[in-house]
Amino acid sequence: MSRFWSQIVHQLTPYTPGEQPQIENLIKLNTNENPYGPSPKVVEAISNANNEALRKYPDPNAKQLKRTIALYYDLAPENVFVGNSSDEVLAHIFRGLLKHAKPLLFPDITYSFYPVYCNLFDIEYQQIPLQQNFCLNLDDYSEDNGGIIFANPNAPTGLAVQPEEIAKLLDRNRDSMVVIDEAYVDFSQVSVVGLLHRYPNLLVTQTLSKSRSLAGLRVGLALGHPDLIDALERIKNSFHPYALDSLALAGAEASFEDDDYFKVTCQKVIRTRERTSDALEQLGFEVLPSDANFVFAKHPSKDASVLFNLLREKGIVVRYFATPRLKDFLRISIGTESEMNSLLAELERLLA
Amino acid sequence: MSRFWSQIVHQLTPYTPGEQPQIENLIKLNTNENPYGPSPKVVEAISNANNEALRKYPDPNAKQLKRTIALYYDLAPENVFVGNSSDEVLAHIFRGLLKHAKPLLFPDITYSFYPVYCNLFDIEYQQIPLQQNFCLNLDDYSEDNGGIIFANPNAPTGLAVQPEEIAKLLDRNRDSMVVIDEAYVDFSQVSVVGLLHRYPNLLVTQTLSKSRSLAGLRVGLALGHPDLIDALERIKNSFHPYALDSLALAGAEASFEDDDYFKVTCQKVIRTRERTSDALEQLGFEVLPSDANFVFAKHPSKDASVLFNLLREKGIVVRYFATPRLKDFLRISIGTESEMNSLLAELERLLA
Repeated sequence: MSRFWSQIVHQLTPYTPGEQPQIENLIKLNTNENPYGPSPKVVEAISNANNEALRKYPDPNAKQLKRTIALYYDLAPENVFVGNSSDEVLAHIFRGLLKHAKPLLFPDITYSFYPVYCNLFDIEYQQIPLQQNFCLNLDDYSEDNGGIIFANPNAPTGLAVQPEEIAKLLDRNRDSMVVIDEAYVDFSQVSVVGLLHRYPNLLVTQTLSKSRSLAGLRVGLALGHPDLIDALERIKNSFHPYALDSLALAGAEASFEDDDYFKVTCQKVIRTRERTSDALEQLGFEVLPSDANFVFAKHPSKDASVLFNLLREKGIVVRYFATPRLKDFLRISIGTESEMNSLLAELERLLA
Repeated sequence: MSRFWSQIVHQLTPYTPGEQPQIENLIKLNTNENPYGPSPKVVEAISNANNEALRKYPDPNAKQLKRTIALYYDLAPENVFVGNSSDEVLAHIFRGLLKHAKPLLFPDITYSFYPVYCNLFDIEYQQIPLQQNFCLNLDDYSEDNGGIIFANPNAPTGLAVQPEEIAKLLDRNRDSMVVIDEAYVDFSQVSVVGLLHRYPNLLVTQTLSKSRSLAGLRVGLALGHPDLIDALERIKNSFHPYALDSLALAGAEASFEDDDYFKVTCQKVIRTRERTSDALEQLGFEVLPSDANFVFAKHPSKDASVLFNLLREKGIVVRYFATPRLKDFLRISIGTESEMNSLLAELERLLA
């Protein structure tokens, strides 16, 4: 606290990232990182960019990366925005496209950063409760609004809404933005990128942190109508024009170019997720059907916070949210087969 | 333009970065990049971080880098903030520490991003004209204000104010923030980092883009009282907690650890600057005495915009600002000895 702070600083309740514990031999299943490394071609591309050329500014327009992403999704470069993490991309979206006279709508349970952005940018919002079973019913989003945003698949539940449902929402909601945060979409079949040509008010965000195993590189993107992308460019160029460094540009491009590696590793994560869900159910857990690279699970008799702490003592870190609707659940990121075996064995011991 | 834009987007006039022309054999003297590459130890540190660990999130608190910078400047880690370029650090400062009821003061000629931030964050400001000779007279900053900011050495003039003068300003101006943007300070002797322990309202920003030859890596920093740093952390953690990627963290740390390389390359740039200034004067230019890695020069008879275009035709790109007070000058970044020889030879031909 200081008299030199601008008013806004006093009002902020910053986001709390999942912890990055410095423990030897830790099994880290708390921040939805990919257990497999990035494509070797990404590492090679970064290596090729890691030289005296670092003395020069990167391309502020990220032309080559935008072209690569556009090609990948069968869009034009004018449909693509890139930023330093999808958190940053979302921040620009909240400020540039979701601040209006009417309230922004999003679920009471979704990516917990959304209310933080609203607070930072002074955006009025209304949280619409998920159904009792944590499903998102888009019929609940019928009122007049200044925009709608949710993660699909949703976090931390892993549950997804089908693209047909989102198309119906877009048909009903033509006068304000609909932003679909597809951070986890590559572990599912629910992407709405295919709807972009039909809806000028649809914006899709994605990240390279999860499915592309590049949480350490900080690259996110938004896809949408050129007018929407233009708003984000204007914000970015009033904030920091060179958002992505030369190494991130090179690595991100290589990631989209190595589709085989991407698909194989995503499939591995999906297979492990399905096996883990089955095994957790056999241990008595209720497991929400997940379309993401994590599962959200609750045990009928063992307290989630107790399990969380017992696992941590054994060097296995998962995520626990101490909020009224989430406090009975653990969010468990999908690790390697061997990491999940260790988790399952430990849970079996703890529940015996 | 779109009805989906938030109000603020309509009002923005984004910053225009210096062009990054894609011309073969270009002599690029337009964006104040360092002509010498980064330290080989930086390249090595990045190489060591470029592996499957990229799948993991970086440390959102950048603890190790802050410790290294603190050690370098004989400060505590709590005095250090780091961000994705000093542009981003400045953006957080404008929002978090310079938005107050009274107007922010800065020179009419300084880093041209400041009015862009004011526009983005709706900050009232007043531009104080530099003296006729482009000197910054701090006695002109006596009125009641919500903060004062300027670049020292200043851009695009290269002129610097001495630390004693800034100390006097701080003595007179105890009730609002004074931010000194030291982007170019390592090419001078005017840093006010040594004043930080005396003034809780002084904040210093620096960048690794110029003297540390890492424009491609996007790392900036702020140094100041822990209360000021806390404001910036709160903003950052409401915006994107993992601002610096793993490679940038590793490279930045290595840069501060290789002080010999840093000092040798800065000295080389300074020597070339002095020689270039002398040679330009011999060609008839008026050259402002520069404390930066560029010179700001005007020819008494040859139009600056004409020279700019003639040089460009020869593959030599410098910076020209078509504004009333700057239109007679060229800003020329200091390149290698050989690049400056080419520039001087070309100018000699053009002026003959």
